[in-house]
Amino acid sequence: MKLDNWLAQRSQSRPDHTALVADGSEVSYAELEAEATWVARRLAAHGVRRGSTAALTMHPRREQVVLIHALTKVGAVLLPLSPQLSAEEHAAVIAAEEPTVDLGDPGQLTQTEADLPLLGEHDMDDVSCRVLTSGSTGAPQPVGLTYGNFLWSAVGSAFNIGVDPQDRWLCCLPLSHVAGLGIAMRSVVYGTTAVIHDGFDVDRVAAALSEEGITVASLVTTMLTRLLEADADLSGPRAILIGGGPVPKEPLEEAIGRGATVVQTYGLTEACSQVTTLAPADARRKLGSAGRPLLTTHLRIQDGEILVQGPTVAPGYADADDWLHTGDLGRIDEEGFLYVEDRIDDMIVSGGENVVPAEVEQVLLRHPEVADAAVVGREDPEWQQAVTAIVVLEDGSAATPDELRRHCAAALAGFKVPKRIELAAALPRTPSGKLMRRALR
Amino acid sequence: MKLDNWLAQRSQSRPDHTALVADGSEVSYAELEAEATWVARRLAAHGVRRGSTAALTMHPRREQVVLIHALTKVGAVLLPLSPQLSAEEHAAVIAAEEPTVDLGDPGQLTQTEADLPLLGEHDMDDVSCRVLTSGSTGAPQPVGLTYGNFLWSAVGSAFNIGVDPQDRWLCCLPLSHVAGLGIAMRSVVYGTTAVIHDGFDVDRVAAALSEEGITVASLVTTMLTRLLEADADLSGPRAILIGGGPVPKEPLEEAIGRGATVVQTYGLTEACSQVTTLAPADARRKLGSAGRPLLTTHLRIQDGEILVQGPTVAPGYADADDWLHTGDLGRIDEEGFLYVEDRIDDMIVSGGENVVPAEVEQVLLRHPEVADAAVVGREDPEWQQAVTAIVVLEDGSAATPDELRRHCAAALAGFKVPKRIELAAALPRTPSGKLMRRALR
Repeated sequence: MKLDNWLAQRSQSRPDHTALVADGSEVSYAELEAEATWVARRLAAHGVRRGSTAALTMHPRREQVVLIHALTKVGAVLLPLSPQLSAEEHAAVIAAEEPTVDLGDPGQLTQTEADLPLLGEHDMDDVSCRVLTSGSTGAPQPVGLTYGNFLWSAVGSAFNIGVDPQDRWLCCLPLSHVAGLGIAMRSVVYGTTAVIHDGFDVDRVAAALSEEGITVASLVTTMLTRLLEADADLSGPRAILIGGGPVPKEPLEEAIGRGATVVQTYGLTEACSQVTTLAPADARRKLGSAGRPLLTTHLRIQDGEILVQGPTVAPGYADADDWLHTGDLGRIDEEGFLYVEDRIDDMIVSGGENVVPAEVEQVLLRHPEVADAAVVGREDPEWQQAVTAIVVLEDGSAATPDELRRHCAAALAGFKVPKRIELAAALPRTPSGKLMRRALR
Repeated sequence: MKLDNWLAQRSQSRPDHTALVADGSEVSYAELEAEATWVARRLAAHGVRRGSTAALTMHPRREQVVLIHALTKVGAVLLPLSPQLSAEEHAAVIAAEEPTVDLGDPGQLTQTEADLPLLGEHDMDDVSCRVLTSGSTGAPQPVGLTYGNFLWSAVGSAFNIGVDPQDRWLCCLPLSHVAGLGIAMRSVVYGTTAVIHDGFDVDRVAAALSEEGITVASLVTTMLTRLLEADADLSGPRAILIGGGPVPKEPLEEAIGRGATVVQTYGLTEACSQVTTLAPADARRKLGSAGRPLLTTHLRIQDGEILVQGPTVAPGYADADDWLHTGDLGRIDEEGFLYVEDRIDDMIVSGGENVVPAEVEQVLLRHPEVADAAVVGREDPEWQQAVTAIVVLEDGSAATPDELRRHCAAALAGFKVPKRIELAAALPRTPSGKLMRRALR
């Protein structure tokens, strides 16, 4: 099926409505359309053609959002890259992915206008973006997401948490990640406002949530924790989505206790972001669950692994029976709510027993002097893999590894109690907040 | 594309949420699913099979809503009939449409359970209902609407007026009409609540709007007028959609003046209800317009006629270029807002000049002593068609036809002023409020 270019459609249906807040200024749909068209007509000078793949360093700024839409208008595929890549990493991705052009960090586009024909509509089966998986477990892989994937993701989210024509959705996640990019795409489908912050600044986010009319926000756990520490008022938005991996209950409970509607979401690049999101009405009752599948999504558990089916799944990523194998462990309760447990790859096999790292981490995090914790398996002659915890203590804490092991032993089966506990100043996380376990092994 | 049966999906995702308010009681999604499944398993005894067409007299009650969903579960096509048809009219429709079965006014379904296999999902290209056009201009014609037509209609409406998981959409329109049936279907797609009244009772509707948490309502002009006369509080819902033909400005203005968010909508059976709906934010500024096209809908005017394109258009109803010719006259202003003028068939050609009846009617309705007015062309030796007004005066009015003609002459070109004005006690309207001009000619 073909649909009109969403930005063009919204520039007709809501020209004066704010499409984007970025770099501190508001951009209307008519302005965003004009800018994207202007840029699209000049992309030929940069080597962009219909069908090209264009790498773009995704600083979360107005220029990049304009380029996202400009590329759709010429029918080129966006390869969004993290601004946090080193020059060497950037070069490695370009060598591996071989995009037609690398717009890099575009700065001033040439003034040369070419007669590139602009597309008024898109086939929903066409690839819009090749998004790199976030790389917490090995080399990033590009996932080709279609216009239809983004559309169905927008529909599924709207029919779960609702959509209001006055919505303002806060994005302080990387635009190179499907969670951030999805906000930019979804807002244009809805004709609503995307508020894009250039990185996560706890005071700026707190101000946006309490004073700038944000109605929906997407955060990762560490951001929520920092907002709670800063005593931010989180009661304004009708939904604060928390994603990026299993979420410990404590910050969710604390946020709900302070009047926030925080709901856990489970998503992945290969399913164009959200697979399940807890409905705001279930936020308290089903704390700890990532919710039920969105309207068009099927979910099942096979050998502990979460499988996903539906029109948000990237083409080529499903098995012969149309199921996407997520590599994530989870369970579904009797009411159909998903609980995400961990990555299969992160499962520790210790003395023949399976240990799910997230379970041990959550026990450690309940200790009042533990600020952060990661659990991995280290090769061990006796246990095959020894359950090993890396712990960040609160400032000034004098807790000892032995004390922490006793704390774990009070709550966990013996084989799950870390054989070793190491103290660290901080844990390595990806820009989107995922723990980089591979770096810890 | 295939999607899960929407009711089954919602009975999983929101089992305890109210799906339906009808016959004075609330029905949860789990209950509606159980009832529809129970009925579906018994439909075989009534001759219903997969692929059957089943006529059903659409009393706006719980039993009929259950049957709508039961028929989808066996893969039968619903032929919804108005309860206002006389026995003779009913028989004529059955003879013309030849449904496989006529469930009529089902009363108690047999207790016999058959092993009809139930469908868990539907192809979006499959026909779900054959809806008769409302018949204001000749014999009703059945329009086959697909699951996809209803889905895209729901998406387009949601991305225009918004959708809230707590929505309660009031239906006091006939369920045999696409506007009423669409509310029942859309609510299940959204997982929200359809509040279905058995006919239009001004006091009951007023109470529902002000006290029963209605967030969206669909009305026709005469209903709005009666609510205004009854001093109903209309300020509660976030949108009151007014459809069923060109809407005079006066009741819209009065309602907005009283704090109501009334928005005109333009739709037709062949496009599965809404084509354009004024966004609530534009309600005041664009009073009199039916709004801009919904997300997936294209609109253009050809020789004064409104043409529609997009995935809500019933298969087989578009021309070779995929445009549906609506037979309605309209214009689109410089900002893309549609103004619906009249039916082409209703255009009067008088002395070689084209007269749009709605324009003359709206002038007549501005006269303080005119309660209702219809303008038609009557065959005339001098004028080909003579512009003729049938007017209902307010109780106790002594206004004369000459006085009304002078009122018209002050506002209209001479050829538009009615040659004759006849007084009547009431005007014939269809159950959905459309003027039956054919009966007046």
